[in-house]
Amino acid sequence: MRARDLLADFPTVRLDSPAIDAARLLAEQDLPGLIVVGDDGAPFTILPGTQVLRLAVPGYCQDDPALARVVDEAHADAFLRALDGRTVREVLPRQPRELPVTDPEATVLEVAALMARTHSPLVAVVDDRRLVGAVTLQALLDGVLAG
Amino acid sequence: MRARDLLADFPTVRLDSPAIDAARLLAEQDLPGLIVVGDDGAPFTILPGTQVLRLAVPGYCQDDPALARVVDEAHADAFLRALDGRTVREVLPRQPRELPVTDPEATVLEVAALMARTHSPLVAVVDDRRLVGAVTLQALLDGVLAG
Repeated sequence: MRARDLLADFPTVRLDSPAIDAARLLAEQDLPGLIVVGDDGAPFTILPGTQVLRLAVPGYCQDDPALARVVDEAHADAFLRALDGRTVREVLPRQPRELPVTDPEATVLEVAALMARTHSPLVAVVDDRRLVGAVTLQALLDGVLAG
Repeated sequence: MRARDLLADFPTVRLDSPAIDAARLLAEQDLPGLIVVGDDGAPFTILPGTQVLRLAVPGYCQDDPALARVVDEAHADAFLRALDGRTVREVLPRQPRELPVTDPEATVLEVAALMARTHSPLVAVVDDRRLVGAVTLQALLDGVLAG
């Protein structure tokens, strides 16, 4: 079994998409994460769902639970408003990191190791710089457990 | 909106459950992760789905993509067999880390910051050491976006 056997079409968002629309897509389609594509259609980055939250959580709350606790309920409820009026490009983290991207020939073990290492339940599959689909954690487990 | 407004019942696995059954539960119920409870019923650990994979991926493959690549397809397909005959307790990682556990009074911002920091799309909610449910990333996004 290879990545090509497990991949499926996956919606993408563009760097110039509104960030709030990206968050809505994640919620409405119950996605494990987002694939952000650049102008060339190739994956620019892949964001696990938890890291989409990170785009909206104020920096001072991210690493200090005590600071998150002092924000009152009304302001806490509105935390996603931080995305309003901003594009995906504008809210993406600066730091480069290993992307959960592989090729169609990757084995399930390679895909599993990549998911574990990058904490991403979503791996983009790229063939000759072209996005051909994605392997989700669920698709991988279903494939392996059915085998 | 507080954790108590977003939580729902969530299946748990026990430390002495067969590890392969835990992986099947994750797959079959399409869960974002697993809550492992100790003998007292309190959460012992929470494993995001990607970290359940980590339990089965050989150590030498986890950090070196090149080593995962040399494992042939037949052996790669069988990687979950590493869980056969072992309990959850036996395969859990040794390293302690921050658990995605909160209390019913946590705001959505606190829960979001916790999910982002721990890379966990699943947060266990504990009241007086008793597990009262879990908040998933999807439930959080649905609650915040509907508000």
